Amino acid sequence: MTNKMQRINLASRPVGAPTADNFKLETTDIPVPGDGEVLVRVHYISLDPYMRGRMDDSKSYTAPVPIGGTMEGGGVGQVITSNANGFVSGDFVFGMLGWATHAIQSGKELRKIDPNLTPITNMLGVLGMPGFTGWHGLMEYGQPKAGETIVVAAATGPVGSMVGQLAKSCGLRTIGLAGGQKKCSLATDLFGFDICIDHRAHNDARSLRKAIKEAAYDGIDIYFENVGGKVLEAVMPLMNPFGRIPVCGMISWYNAGGLGEGAEATMSAPALWRPILVKFLKVNGFIISNHWNKYPEFLTEMMPKVINGDIQVLEDITNGLENAPQAFIGLLHGQNVGKQIVQII
Amino acid sequence: MTNKMQRINLASRPVGAPTADNFKLETTDIPVPGDGEVLVRVHYISLDPYMRGRMDDSKSYTAPVPIGGTMEGGGVGQVITSNANGFVSGDFVFGMLGWATHAIQSGKELRKIDPNLTPITNMLGVLGMPGFTGWHGLMEYGQPKAGETIVVAAATGPVGSMVGQLAKSCGLRTIGLAGGQKKCSLATDLFGFDICIDHRAHNDARSLRKAIKEAAYDGIDIYFENVGGKVLEAVMPLMNPFGRIPVCGMISWYNAGGLGEGAEATMSAPALWRPILVKFLKVNGFIISNHWNKYPEFLTEMMPKVINGDIQVLEDITNGLENAPQAFIGLLHGQNVGKQIVQII
Repeated sequence: MTNKMQRINLASRPVGAPTADNFKLETTDIPVPGDGEVLVRVHYISLDPYMRGRMDDSKSYTAPVPIGGTMEGGGVGQVITSNANGFVSGDFVFGMLGWATHAIQSGKELRKIDPNLTPITNMLGVLGMPGFTGWHGLMEYGQPKAGETIVVAAATGPVGSMVGQLAKSCGLRTIGLAGGQKKCSLATDLFGFDICIDHRAHNDARSLRKAIKEAAYDGIDIYFENVGGKVLEAVMPLMNPFGRIPVCGMISWYNAGGLGEGAEATMSAPALWRPILVKFLKVNGFIISNHWNKYPEFLTEMMPKVINGDIQVLEDITNGLENAPQAFIGLLHGQNVGKQIVQII
Repeated sequence: MTNKMQRINLASRPVGAPTADNFKLETTDIPVPGDGEVLVRVHYISLDPYMRGRMDDSKSYTAPVPIGGTMEGGGVGQVITSNANGFVSGDFVFGMLGWATHAIQSGKELRKIDPNLTPITNMLGVLGMPGFTGWHGLMEYGQPKAGETIVVAAATGPVGSMVGQLAKSCGLRTIGLAGGQKKCSLATDLFGFDICIDHRAHNDARSLRKAIKEAAYDGIDIYFENVGGKVLEAVMPLMNPFGRIPVCGMISWYNAGGLGEGAEATMSAPALWRPILVKFLKVNGFIISNHWNKYPEFLTEMMPKVINGDIQVLEDITNGLENAPQAFIGLLHGQNVGKQIVQII
């Protein structure tokens, strides 16, 4: 066994969209776990839009990754050495392992998983942070009611596909948005959306709005916001009175700085704010890491549905840590099809 | 007794800010109440910012006033003739009486009031729609907690002064905003705000933000939104994580069309939306007419506080129905000091 590991560091902060230059693959010694810590061999890492925010040196939910620091992210792997109670060599775990082949983590920050129950990659997607985000956002802030209409952006992503499937099971009319015909077919055929609109077929918010309006003929009761930009602009004027907008991401504005100062929109701020008043909307921003206390409830409810196939899963697996930056850049451009994962081992 | 009445009709729809030309004083016969209806002699009418929205022929909470129709609004008065159960001549009532000296209303749409309990004008302000708006918005959506900081725009208005006084009684640090030194003094001396900032002393959102930041040294937990525009722009970057923004009005954008399409802002839509996500904000739009079921609870709780002086009242009374248009135009420019009322009789 080699005593070397690899990791991907933040080489420089991106100006606008990240490029390969912003990342650096580094080989280094495998560190030794301290007291209460565990050394994990990483099998899979998760790539998620929120990581774009971590690359900026601006105010966001959490501290940025420092220059030269390892890119953060969730991962699943197997314990090599444990100095923490409750973990032994061979255990499968997930936690914030970073973009790396090996990770040291405090035992308190790791969760043991059973690879016989469900594929371990599910803990990064449908049963991990993205699926949990969709479940919590829809049920807590979306307050879905049978007969209502929901619009879900990034319908084939791990958040959107959870939201769409859950909303369908609650009796809602589900309208997905996705980039390209392939994703649209997956949205309806695999995830059961009533209809999916290819946002790439629409150059501007007005054209997209027309298409959404045709599909959402009774207006929109819930818009699950995870993209911002053109889709938000298209949707806002179509919201029904008492509509709800859970906001868990605004990926299209992520390259514009932490608070969106530099981002551009074709609609004015008043035009995107006044509907909140005149339609009596509930807009709730959230990140799921503030709600881990509800994770056991989520797992209890959703793991059986994933195991028995009531909730479908779609993963996009890239091989090799060295390919993580390119996969991440692609993710920000919507090139992944399903939950983006990087296989390390 | 004359059989003539006067009313103010909408003569034309305003382009931008309303002018005197948009209104027309009309003399007409006093109508006869039908079955279940009541004829009321109006004593006072209420002028409120929401009326600006009714003048536009665009989608808003409710239907617009038709051209030639009487301007809508709440009023208090005395029953002359009653064909409705529960009302007799001489009863004091309040309801949507319109900008007029006399009104016909269904008994179901009127509420009897006791002039011996509290001055009847209170039913238009502190104990009417504006006070109820402040109470419901703060307690339901603001979720105030002792030790937090709230920013309240239009601090001496009937909504803002209720919010500030209630928030203070809940143990919050209260920061008011008002136009001019006179209003600022009233905000602190009469309504007990910890500090009041004169927004007219700041030409742009950046300058105003600096002043608010100094006052709100621990950040802002609740922003009670009833003005939009420069204040919203100043406040958004200062919101604390898990902050709440009840939205009951955006007066500064009212001249821009029902959905704010034509309004201008100096900050972009992304800059005013991304904080919702990254600060996990709860933004709730509402109008109080959707919440009348809670009005008895409000009255039960707040009427004693108004009567015993725990809640202070400030009214700005203009005399004569014919002066209502000018008073309303002034209101939209912040020229009133306290709740704007027009005395008719």
